[in-house]
Amino acid sequence: MIKTETKKTKKQIIIEEAATLFREKGYSATTMRDIAAKVGVEAASLYNHIKSKEQILSKICFSLADTYTSKMNLIVATDDTPIAKITELLFVHIEINAMSSPLASVMNDEWRHLTEPERSEFLDQRRTYENQFISIIKAGIADESLIDMDPKIALYTMLSSIRWLQHWYHANREMEVDSLKNTIISLLLKGIQNK
Amino acid sequence: MIKTETKKTKKQIIIEEAATLFREKGYSATTMRDIAAKVGVEAASLYNHIKSKEQILSKICFSLADTYTSKMNLIVATDDTPIAKITELLFVHIEINAMSSPLASVMNDEWRHLTEPERSEFLDQRRTYENQFISIIKAGIADESLIDMDPKIALYTMLSSIRWLQHWYHANREMEVDSLKNTIISLLLKGIQNK
Repeated sequence: MIKTETKKTKKQIIIEEAATLFREKGYSATTMRDIAAKVGVEAASLYNHIKSKEQILSKICFSLADTYTSKMNLIVATDDTPIAKITELLFVHIEINAMSSPLASVMNDEWRHLTEPERSEFLDQRRTYENQFISIIKAGIADESLIDMDPKIALYTMLSSIRWLQHWYHANREMEVDSLKNTIISLLLKGIQNK
Repeated sequence: MIKTETKKTKKQIIIEEAATLFREKGYSATTMRDIAAKVGVEAASLYNHIKSKEQILSKICFSLADTYTSKMNLIVATDDTPIAKITELLFVHIEINAMSSPLASVMNDEWRHLTEPERSEFLDQRRTYENQFISIIKAGIADESLIDMDPKIALYTMLSSIRWLQHWYHANREMEVDSLKNTIISLLLKGIQNK
């Protein structure tokens, strides 16, 4: 849900305002009444657009998960080198964490509140994504373009290294996303140590 | 609060059980009654050891912040190279995030619920710590042992890269902390790309 010039639907506005509240107060502590107040409508009219708080959380988690999944499927289908694929995927993570930061924090921090069967579906989708990412890292280790390391530690360290953006970038817009991307990717690929 | 053989006080047990609950349910959604049930005492008797939920949060945040601060002061006072100092600090972060993970997640995710004046004191202490860390990175850039980069992005990327441990390590104890430390530090210093 990167900002575009297209007009947002009422549902999208509700989801984005809810995400901001979930991030601020936490999912559990936020009520449908809080969301209605933030959107500026009566609680009753909120239910014309959205069934429940659970439904909002589910929309947030799956809209981002689907973005990651479809990007992964595009990248896996290319003949790019493992390093090019990893760079491309890290770009996507930086972009989403910087530009859609309330949605990204809610997905990362509040998915535990999804109810079944959605919780399991979400975890399955995440596991598939991580396994695809790990296969790319393994291919890079195999062709010696990457150092020999535990692919899981490498994956979690890289993905985690980007998460600070979800809290920080929103308040510090003066930094260019492109400059951020290049600095972080270079740090993860080449490290901070001078050769 | 790394596990030792020494006997824990009732207060320590309360704080650690509360941290586990805050991490699971969130600080806002956890009541003193929940904490009492988890510790296995009557709510009334909890108040013999601890004044309020706020006091528990404050103890958690400042006990870890003080650990970081005192380690930083020790390291700053040495003649070590910037890279040696950074390595030492990252070791501390990995150790705390892996071994004291409920406390670390509560400090990282719930400090916003501290009340004044403690909230400002906590943020001041954190700012001082970050500035000291940034000075070390700048010294490394100046003596060319580190690549030329934005020190703030480097700091936040490195500290964030370690945070996944607070959620993950607890459930995956089969991995050696030493092996984790070495992999992550090597990744951050040298990157994942083979030379």
